[in-house]
Amino acid sequence: MQNFMFHVPTKVYFGKGEIDKLGNEVKKYGSKVLLVYGGGSIKKIGLYDDIINNFKKYEISYMELSGVDPNPRITSVEAGVKICRENAIEAVVAAGGGSAIDCAKMIAAATKSGSDDLWGIVTGDVPIKEVLPVIAIPTIAAAGSEMDTSAVISNLKTHEKIGPSNPGMRPKVAIMDPTYTFTVSPRQTAAGTADIMSHVLEVYFNNNKGAFLQSRFAEAVLKTCIKYGKLAYREPDNYEARANLMWAGSWAINGLLAKGAAGGWSCHAMEHELSAHYDIVHGEGLAILIPHWLRHMLCVENVWKYVEYGINVWGIDPNLSQMDIANQAIEATASYFKAMNLPSTLSEVGIDTSKFEVMATSAAKRLKNTFVPLNKDDVKAIYQKAL
Amino acid sequence: MQNFMFHVPTKVYFGKGEIDKLGNEVKKYGSKVLLVYGGGSIKKIGLYDDIINNFKKYEISYMELSGVDPNPRITSVEAGVKICRENAIEAVVAAGGGSAIDCAKMIAAATKSGSDDLWGIVTGDVPIKEVLPVIAIPTIAAAGSEMDTSAVISNLKTHEKIGPSNPGMRPKVAIMDPTYTFTVSPRQTAAGTADIMSHVLEVYFNNNKGAFLQSRFAEAVLKTCIKYGKLAYREPDNYEARANLMWAGSWAINGLLAKGAAGGWSCHAMEHELSAHYDIVHGEGLAILIPHWLRHMLCVENVWKYVEYGINVWGIDPNLSQMDIANQAIEATASYFKAMNLPSTLSEVGIDTSKFEVMATSAAKRLKNTFVPLNKDDVKAIYQKAL
Repeated sequence: MQNFMFHVPTKVYFGKGEIDKLGNEVKKYGSKVLLVYGGGSIKKIGLYDDIINNFKKYEISYMELSGVDPNPRITSVEAGVKICRENAIEAVVAAGGGSAIDCAKMIAAATKSGSDDLWGIVTGDVPIKEVLPVIAIPTIAAAGSEMDTSAVISNLKTHEKIGPSNPGMRPKVAIMDPTYTFTVSPRQTAAGTADIMSHVLEVYFNNNKGAFLQSRFAEAVLKTCIKYGKLAYREPDNYEARANLMWAGSWAINGLLAKGAAGGWSCHAMEHELSAHYDIVHGEGLAILIPHWLRHMLCVENVWKYVEYGINVWGIDPNLSQMDIANQAIEATASYFKAMNLPSTLSEVGIDTSKFEVMATSAAKRLKNTFVPLNKDDVKAIYQKAL
Repeated sequence: MQNFMFHVPTKVYFGKGEIDKLGNEVKKYGSKVLLVYGGGSIKKIGLYDDIINNFKKYEISYMELSGVDPNPRITSVEAGVKICRENAIEAVVAAGGGSAIDCAKMIAAATKSGSDDLWGIVTGDVPIKEVLPVIAIPTIAAAGSEMDTSAVISNLKTHEKIGPSNPGMRPKVAIMDPTYTFTVSPRQTAAGTADIMSHVLEVYFNNNKGAFLQSRFAEAVLKTCIKYGKLAYREPDNYEARANLMWAGSWAINGLLAKGAAGGWSCHAMEHELSAHYDIVHGEGLAILIPHWLRHMLCVENVWKYVEYGINVWGIDPNLSQMDIANQAIEATASYFKAMNLPSTLSEVGIDTSKFEVMATSAAKRLKNTFVPLNKDDVKAIYQKAL
């Protein structure tokens, strides 16, 4: 096990009706807040009214930034920072998917930077200093942004999608009510489940055999996704399914699975190229890539990890040969995604070979410290097989 | 899944050599500290010198409270509070087992209470107000006190052993170096492993079928204990074993496994009576009771949980009958404890029937909200079978 620092101070209120805790918690951080959200879904499900009622009850004044898109843009961050600076905003409340929360985190990190080069803050050229407190109210189980330190922001001009990280960006409070996810469509439920599973798999496939507990925790999250992703896909208002998926999503990425067993991520780097260039659904891009990524890396030296995965997660017969277990585990993964009607080829989501070279070149820069280090040709081969 | 609040803000530095982070972290909370520890073991392993060097480097002045016994006494708490009050101590640093850390937490909670009835604070008669910051440096994998909110204190006069809990008592920082546990004796390693497993089992056996993720996380911790408890028992300086046990011990009890799936504890209530009256090793008392507790509760209505336990933790053949799986799981548990030479009967640790009535009466007060509620006669029956 590697040395590590673990510090996840987010205070989580979990369960139906917990939104009642919002006002009291926000008030601890300020009386002037920015509320960040996406389209109108938080209004449809009543969450918007719940939030505003909390603000009124605790005499919290608020401004709004709505219309944050999936794969949130730097332009939204710029709009939010402008509001925060002009109105001396003290805290940022985000309600919605990972996009709204990531956008809020980046606004919180940029407001007090003293710089107008906000994309420079995303790329790391401009340092993050003081971060405004962030309070997160997720409405989909997917990104896990409510308990982690990073935010993924897209720049449509430069076709870049980058995920900076800073401890200050970790939400101080997260209010997680599974009933707010009942209206997530089957398609987005499936994509969110694939996103969570990707967060786990990219960390789980590491070379640190001594991080046993971390691997077993990872399997716990994977088994939860497998059981409840499909169930929530079929039964959108199944509370048990939504609750387990939601809590699994937070733990997939808050550090528990990675600390002590860290390596670099793979699929996210490859997928971020796809959604930066084609603006596809992030979780669908991951579902397409994961089986090919697993197949591409498999070899005699690392088959042991696939065997762990196959036996412990998918219940594959341990008496089979190691390679058979590994291949069955990969097929089980692919079949699971298909069972939720996730796309399995890049063609299905409108991607052809024309940008493979540029995307692979960019992705490969971040794939040197992974379970199996991948170069540009590896990435192109994975894209090609996924075509 | 039940509603819950999860908030574990302890900052953990984990791994060999991480003690170097101590001074800088302590300094954030104060420049006058009380160092609490037990016998001389922290001096033998070099930890004492490491701590003092950190204090000197960061110009932290310190007082010491040493000689804290296993099953820490209210008298030690009284001595520590006196030092803190007379010297305007700003933070409490604990180095040692759960006893030293629990004692430090109680000192931290009592110092600013404004009351001289310190036992009243333990019993809850006197409220806890402001709590001094606690920094924990555990030297055994067992109690998990370094990331939790409670402290168990014994009163040898009244034969009481009580575990009050307060969010302020959760350590702000924990420094966990597995090499500090290399000198833990095989006997204490086994007892510590049984303690961790008990923390998990008492929560894992709950009636909330919907808390799936929590149960899988619990199994991850149990599998880690089973693999590495015996290994550390045999190979005291096996870093991988010590590291996994140590990290498992923290997660067994910090809230992750219980939140959303909470019920009352059973074995700890029954064991605290034994060690309050006979001052036995806590983990040994638990190892004796656990198999009998599991056997006593088993019935057709709750066999499903034993089946989960048997298949997922012990790898028992799922084709057997449910009752066979359950019984084999209980036997596997008992055999595992025996393999580490833990005692399996009360007689072995010098306990006879003479205090069964008084102990059972007291324990039963805390066993109403458990997986299977236990009354005085149940507890007596469990003690009797364990004789």
